[in-house]
Amino acid sequence: MMIYLDQAASSFPKPTTVADAMVKAVNEYGANPGRSGHQLSKCASAVIDKTREKVQKMFRNQSVDRVVFSLNATTALNQAIDGLSWKRGDHVVATTFEHNSVRRPLERLKKEKGVLVDYVRPNEDEKTWEEAILNKITSNTKLVIVTHGSNVTGEIIPVESIGVSLKNSGVMYCVDASQTAGVLPIDMEAMNIDMLAFPGHKGLLGPQGVGVLLVKNHVNLRPINVGGTGSHSEELEQPKIWPAGWESGTLNTPGIAGLLKGIQEVEKRGLSTIFEHEKSLSIHCIKGLKKLPGIHIVGPGEEENRLGVVSFYIDGVDGLEVAMILDEHYQIAVRAGLHCAPLTHESYETSDKGVIRASFGIYNTKEEVDQLVAAIEEIKDGLLE
Amino acid sequence: MMIYLDQAASSFPKPTTVADAMVKAVNEYGANPGRSGHQLSKCASAVIDKTREKVQKMFRNQSVDRVVFSLNATTALNQAIDGLSWKRGDHVVATTFEHNSVRRPLERLKKEKGVLVDYVRPNEDEKTWEEAILNKITSNTKLVIVTHGSNVTGEIIPVESIGVSLKNSGVMYCVDASQTAGVLPIDMEAMNIDMLAFPGHKGLLGPQGVGVLLVKNHVNLRPINVGGTGSHSEELEQPKIWPAGWESGTLNTPGIAGLLKGIQEVEKRGLSTIFEHEKSLSIHCIKGLKKLPGIHIVGPGEEENRLGVVSFYIDGVDGLEVAMILDEHYQIAVRAGLHCAPLTHESYETSDKGVIRASFGIYNTKEEVDQLVAAIEEIKDGLLE
Repeated sequence: MMIYLDQAASSFPKPTTVADAMVKAVNEYGANPGRSGHQLSKCASAVIDKTREKVQKMFRNQSVDRVVFSLNATTALNQAIDGLSWKRGDHVVATTFEHNSVRRPLERLKKEKGVLVDYVRPNEDEKTWEEAILNKITSNTKLVIVTHGSNVTGEIIPVESIGVSLKNSGVMYCVDASQTAGVLPIDMEAMNIDMLAFPGHKGLLGPQGVGVLLVKNHVNLRPINVGGTGSHSEELEQPKIWPAGWESGTLNTPGIAGLLKGIQEVEKRGLSTIFEHEKSLSIHCIKGLKKLPGIHIVGPGEEENRLGVVSFYIDGVDGLEVAMILDEHYQIAVRAGLHCAPLTHESYETSDKGVIRASFGIYNTKEEVDQLVAAIEEIKDGLLE
Repeated sequence: MMIYLDQAASSFPKPTTVADAMVKAVNEYGANPGRSGHQLSKCASAVIDKTREKVQKMFRNQSVDRVVFSLNATTALNQAIDGLSWKRGDHVVATTFEHNSVRRPLERLKKEKGVLVDYVRPNEDEKTWEEAILNKITSNTKLVIVTHGSNVTGEIIPVESIGVSLKNSGVMYCVDASQTAGVLPIDMEAMNIDMLAFPGHKGLLGPQGVGVLLVKNHVNLRPINVGGTGSHSEELEQPKIWPAGWESGTLNTPGIAGLLKGIQEVEKRGLSTIFEHEKSLSIHCIKGLKKLPGIHIVGPGEEENRLGVVSFYIDGVDGLEVAMILDEHYQIAVRAGLHCAPLTHESYETSDKGVIRASFGIYNTKEEVDQLVAAIEEIKDGLLE
């Protein structure tokens, strides 16, 4: 039996209700949602509507119609970023913790449209995140986009204080909750978030194949994809009706049905229980690893508020090799490398080495963490002999 | 038990192997494909690679790396169309049979980039499709894009003769096989197709949530979405590596695993058996409907080569009402309206009425068609009394 510590990539296992709901969607009402008016189509629409409503309430978006489903968080983030209207000289503030799903769309805007981008580093000029971000804002700043939690270090960015400080600034505020949706409470109203993006298959315990973008009512977004919207077929132009106008084509009904069950499991357990569990495993892991000589934890230590993600490297040892041995000889799944977040590694000067990342979920246990630490000790000793 | 005659929207039911494969993907190897190197991730990658290879061989694309998975045919078509580089005055030839997933991206290019678009009508100037299309080509024509089969009338467009006639013309040739993948043989080599797009959830019998774009090696496409690609994380720019550079973010692993099973079922039955079965049901349906006074078939009749899609309207009767009665009183699912293809209705002068569409799949039977015809007769008589 595999010990799966790659939860930051995809949570696994899923609640059994997830696959059950997907089977039901495929085998019992596999019709096209929102297209035809018949019973099977209505069943498909109903499960999508229910999931939309659940998501809207959980994250307190203003309108249920502005819950947009797509393939993954990357497509949601591209819609959020590329969907705004950009001109030369516009300015964006982001952080060095951004995943490539934010950084690459921003770099493309830089290159193709002459947009300027600042990436704020942790502890930049010994400022807090909100001070450092506010400090970068100019009269040309159009967007502040930050990740809620680093997928490399588990560090949490205070999205609420940043949001509150941006209130009435006229700057759009977008949060990438890929690592935190289903783990930390997110309230778009209280946190003053204009757009929120996340995947269904991580903390929300849904299957792969669903990304979500929540958009406040005042935000104008050009849809990335245009096409069939099920109604207003006669119009040449994409109808400006949410969510259909931003969800052209057939949605992933089974995936969305599965996501609903994942979210229901998250609600049953409660965010604070989930967060405390995952955090306690990461602290247990850090404490265990710190006892071993030559191991360096990257990012926040065990005293800080953090997600269940621990990255580390070992002096003189190749992380990819360690991950391979963990997989093949110890049946432990972790992830080594840069984790699609190279700027994070620049911040921590780990770009050349990459790191080994262990990330924890609701089903992981202290015993599994102990097995990881014991395995790391053996591997390290073996490789350094 | 519902009689499901809305196969052109989504095929239903699916082979039982489809949901089984999805359950396995979710419950046994729910890790992130192509990201981490561990066993579970490799299982996810393996099923995706296998599907990619299957699709490449089935449609004879040059390279397995240029099989790009996305959410649906609409995202695949937006990638194909919007991914080309456009300038004012560029010209496109399409047909009036295009679905909004082609028409709306083209209309947007027209409006935003000054691209010119001609939509060829069936029998335009009494020419064949290939003559009429060739006739429209100018020195500025960059793209010919045609649907292989109308989702409204079931008419088949001769994509091979069009492709052959475009050979060495320097014009890009894209085919929308939404209604034909899994029904008619499509050979990108022999048909000289540069890009081919289709959904997984129609003729290929897979679940909703997967679209496919096949791209020949010479085609340059700007990726619509950029982000994490699993490797080359350190590069600021999106890596130009197929397929990863055009598939940013996590793929729909369960959906792709289900699609593989759908395709295997298609292969087991054989395309010609599937096509003949669906065509024979449509002919049986047309013959039955023609016996009823006041019913008009839209599009090709029973003598012509056609897909298993039959659209009709009834003098003096509202199609939406008929569809509702069929659903509620006869448990028969059809679709009424414009079917996201308004130009088709303009061609047939049915824009004001819309039509009732019955579409047939591999599991439908002659008896079901008979029940539809009998129900239509009753409803018509009742409404016109």
